[in-house]
Amino acid sequence: MYRSHTNGELRIEDINKEVTLCGWVQKSREMGAMTFVDLRDRYGITQLVCGEELLKIAKDLGREDVIQVTGKVIERESKNKNIPTGEIEIAVQSITVLNKSKTPPFTIEDNTDGGEELRMQYRYLDLRRKPLQEALKLRHKLSIEIRKYLDSINFFEIETPYLIKSTPEGARDFVVPSRMNPNQFYALPQSPQTFKQLLMVSGYDRYYQIVRCFRDEDLRADRQPEFTQIDCEMAFVDQEDILNTFEAMMVHLFQITKGIEFDSFPRMSYADAMENYGCDKPDIRFGMTFNYINEVVKNKGFAIFDDAESVIAIVAEDCSTYTRKELDKLVDFVKRPQIGAKGLIYVKCNEDGTFKSSVDKFYSEEDLKAWADKCGAKAGDLILVLSGDKTATQNQMNTLRLHLGNELGLRNPNIYAPLWVYDFPLLEWDEESGRYHAMHHPFTSPKKEDIGLLDTDPGKVRANAYDLVLNGTEIGGGSIRIHDRAVQSRMFDLLGFSKDEAQAQFGFLMNAFEYGAPPHGGIALGFDRLCALFGGQETIRDFIAFPKNNNGRDVMIDSPSPISKEQLEELNIDIIKKEVV
Amino acid sequence: MYRSHTNGELRIEDINKEVTLCGWVQKSREMGAMTFVDLRDRYGITQLVCGEELLKIAKDLGREDVIQVTGKVIERESKNKNIPTGEIEIAVQSITVLNKSKTPPFTIEDNTDGGEELRMQYRYLDLRRKPLQEALKLRHKLSIEIRKYLDSINFFEIETPYLIKSTPEGARDFVVPSRMNPNQFYALPQSPQTFKQLLMVSGYDRYYQIVRCFRDEDLRADRQPEFTQIDCEMAFVDQEDILNTFEAMMVHLFQITKGIEFDSFPRMSYADAMENYGCDKPDIRFGMTFNYINEVVKNKGFAIFDDAESVIAIVAEDCSTYTRKELDKLVDFVKRPQIGAKGLIYVKCNEDGTFKSSVDKFYSEEDLKAWADKCGAKAGDLILVLSGDKTATQNQMNTLRLHLGNELGLRNPNIYAPLWVYDFPLLEWDEESGRYHAMHHPFTSPKKEDIGLLDTDPGKVRANAYDLVLNGTEIGGGSIRIHDRAVQSRMFDLLGFSKDEAQAQFGFLMNAFEYGAPPHGGIALGFDRLCALFGGQETIRDFIAFPKNNNGRDVMIDSPSPISKEQLEELNIDIIKKEVV
Repeated sequence: MYRSHTNGELRIEDINKEVTLCGWVQKSREMGAMTFVDLRDRYGITQLVCGEELLKIAKDLGREDVIQVTGKVIERESKNKNIPTGEIEIAVQSITVLNKSKTPPFTIEDNTDGGEELRMQYRYLDLRRKPLQEALKLRHKLSIEIRKYLDSINFFEIETPYLIKSTPEGARDFVVPSRMNPNQFYALPQSPQTFKQLLMVSGYDRYYQIVRCFRDEDLRADRQPEFTQIDCEMAFVDQEDILNTFEAMMVHLFQITKGIEFDSFPRMSYADAMENYGCDKPDIRFGMTFNYINEVVKNKGFAIFDDAESVIAIVAEDCSTYTRKELDKLVDFVKRPQIGAKGLIYVKCNEDGTFKSSVDKFYSEEDLKAWADKCGAKAGDLILVLSGDKTATQNQMNTLRLHLGNELGLRNPNIYAPLWVYDFPLLEWDEESGRYHAMHHPFTSPKKEDIGLLDTDPGKVRANAYDLVLNGTEIGGGSIRIHDRAVQSRMFDLLGFSKDEAQAQFGFLMNAFEYGAPPHGGIALGFDRLCALFGGQETIRDFIAFPKNNNGRDVMIDSPSPISKEQLEELNIDIIKKEVV
Repeated sequence: MYRSHTNGELRIEDINKEVTLCGWVQKSREMGAMTFVDLRDRYGITQLVCGEELLKIAKDLGREDVIQVTGKVIERESKNKNIPTGEIEIAVQSITVLNKSKTPPFTIEDNTDGGEELRMQYRYLDLRRKPLQEALKLRHKLSIEIRKYLDSINFFEIETPYLIKSTPEGARDFVVPSRMNPNQFYALPQSPQTFKQLLMVSGYDRYYQIVRCFRDEDLRADRQPEFTQIDCEMAFVDQEDILNTFEAMMVHLFQITKGIEFDSFPRMSYADAMENYGCDKPDIRFGMTFNYINEVVKNKGFAIFDDAESVIAIVAEDCSTYTRKELDKLVDFVKRPQIGAKGLIYVKCNEDGTFKSSVDKFYSEEDLKAWADKCGAKAGDLILVLSGDKTATQNQMNTLRLHLGNELGLRNPNIYAPLWVYDFPLLEWDEESGRYHAMHHPFTSPKKEDIGLLDTDPGKVRANAYDLVLNGTEIGGGSIRIHDRAVQSRMFDLLGFSKDEAQAQFGFLMNAFEYGAPPHGGIALGFDRLCALFGGQETIRDFIAFPKNNNGRDVMIDSPSPISKEQLEELNIDIIKKEVV
């Protein structure tokens, strides 16, 4: 046994005990003939006191050295109330250096001086920092609680394969050449979708899995090529059952890990979300919902509004005092190419009851008062207006609203506002490919009452699909699935599959539907994102032990990397262009 | 809500309740105007009684149809004591067919009439059978218990990446071409070995993960290209700590899932295991250990024994009555090419005190009595003797011993005999490549007292490595790791790595050792195998929801499969030989 106790364990009750501790030197300082060392491990920090007889060895201790000490627990003179071991210290009798450390390339402190790239390269040192240890501890705790909860309501965790089959639908697959089956490839799963459906066909009734998924997409900020999903499926359920089941799970998680009590989560249709927030994952921690003011602004000679499909206004409360400079910055913001608005109209609802706008030339005070009434703006508020095509304007206004939410401090990461969004469209038209795509995935069932529209107006068909949104981020989504061969087949038609393609790719699933498939549905929650949100952080990277950078590289192990000619030959593959810029 | 209760739930106390049930038609039979239907789901079977008014619909019900019924719980006239719901039945008021089933290609019964290939193709139907449902339920339960146990002793489950780096050591990697990093490949992990070691360097202290691992090996019977491992690592431990920790976990698992109590597991050195069982994973459910009888058999004119390095005898108790035919079958068995013995000598220790052997020409009764004394054989026993090179003879005798164990019913799958094997050699010489290979892996630490031998006689160096063996199957293995850069570097030398290769492949780990790496070690247990053994089965296939066949194929989804030209081009790879036989 290397140690008798950890560094988070000893208390005033342990005084006079002979102990052996191990850990890392957090820091050491000399005071006269004495050396004080903070010894750290995952469990805490214990102060060591080394007398004159240990001066030589204690003096040589450097940060991050790994040591083993034996000594006696004594009461501390100047107690540290900030740590649980702060009332005691160890009068050290002997020190063994188990492993010296070079000087780390950055400080191992809560706030480090290391840059992003350096910390990724030395991830094993970054992972020593307390914020990251807390993040991974929270992740562990959440996974334990999720499993405990789902186990208690009869879900089985069932592992599904990672070497599966490439499918043309959805995002790009990572593929794996097969040596035993030359010219053929496995794919890594983007999700275990078809397998969990088959498990329902097999009668497993309630399935879950905390499972890795893979997408070979160009990585936007805060996406990872491999990510973890809480993947769930239930048989003999409708949408209401799923929402209730997983809402209860989330309520439990909030309660047990954050101490926050929720009665129930609000629900909003996709149509309402788009109309009021211009977005299918609204952040409802704050209001500032959309007002469509076409009627009150039209026919006053302001051509831009007269010609616009939609004129949308939001109200920033208590912002009528915004300066010219602040307003110009907002105008610049919405004109940025990635947002693409042509301009931004404002109306200040002054405290004295007067109005001041950027379109005073066209609108009288009375006109502006009508706008304010329409928007529910009160004295002291600022009205911001965008106009143009409806969808584009909704998008732009959504971005502006979130931007203002950030600026005004309305998006506090310690406030949690979950929301169900439901009644998503089944299909979306893709101009580029000139065909419909599945908005969720091809296995999502259309609403019974909309099934007639599949033949007449497919774009109007609503799906039994739903998302769980938390603070403006989608943390999960799911649907009631198709369980009927004919409907599934029709769905593949609509998505542009030929009968042969559909059979080749998903024949196993359609066949399975012919052998007694129960009604079923499910949900998948993004576990990395959930951990980050529960940890009050916006980025997932610190909640993943060994993440990849934005080029999909692990810079610590330097992967991906070339493989040998022999490996390629064995796999019967070759590289096309040897030289890559 | 599709149902008010499951089919395993209703009891005599529920009589007169109006209920709605869903499930699969297990079977139905008509008795006069009544139809009795067994309705099945994961939770059990409930008997339905349909009266005359439902005759038409009930008559049409076929096996595996999915139905929903409403009705009233009534007491059964002829009670079925074999099932928990056997005291009640449902007087059905209405039936809704949720989904018809075609006739399944094989019967969904405990003992099915379906062949292996057909059941793999229709895995979703095979998974409906109770033995498979029980297998996956056991797997779920074991995973829950393992996590609960490890959580209770401060282990964190930490997820490590699946897209890592190909390394030349060990088995063949599955590789994944990177689109974003052309000409470069990820590899799927054979185990998270280096990552768990880095987590120890990071101070996580106690790590575990139930994790998928991948090996692109030619599949022997009962191996899978992807398999699941219980992967564990601890810091500040020696071998004794690891053995004690995981022995306690296994004792707990045996107790909680099998109701079997173990005090502690026996331990055996690798040298003793080889000497007494000719194998590093002895099945100690039965004796029949090796006797080296060279001294008593030599110099009697029997050249084969005189020239042999080793003459090894085992005693089959109470088998002196084996017939000529039975003995010939044993001789044929050991002569099979995959075993390769030249012959088998037997001595019958007859009940009457006489001896009869296949070498009576060379040995007197007195000689044979000396053999029997040497082997501890008693009247009624059969002595079986193989001879030749020591290692080859040990191998052959191991196979014969296990064969006899099976024949004599000494390998009862419901008896559990765990065993620790320790002090494995660090290296083994590979004739083909003319160099040492790591017996466990390159990160295993040599025993301190043997470190001097690294330079003089590397093959003699023992490692701090250990295996957990259950009923003759290795279910886990691990080691105390090297945590010192110089020792790790020396190890790579011995394994034939150049300095540059070692740095390119494992530089990140050796660098990490310079920043305060604690002493650490761990173990990995094969979860698929563990489940199978706990389930009293020899093959793992039924304990994996969607296994692959011996060619690494998933015949249900027909994977691996060709991918499109566009996919290949995007990945900058091409197939070398288009035509494959």
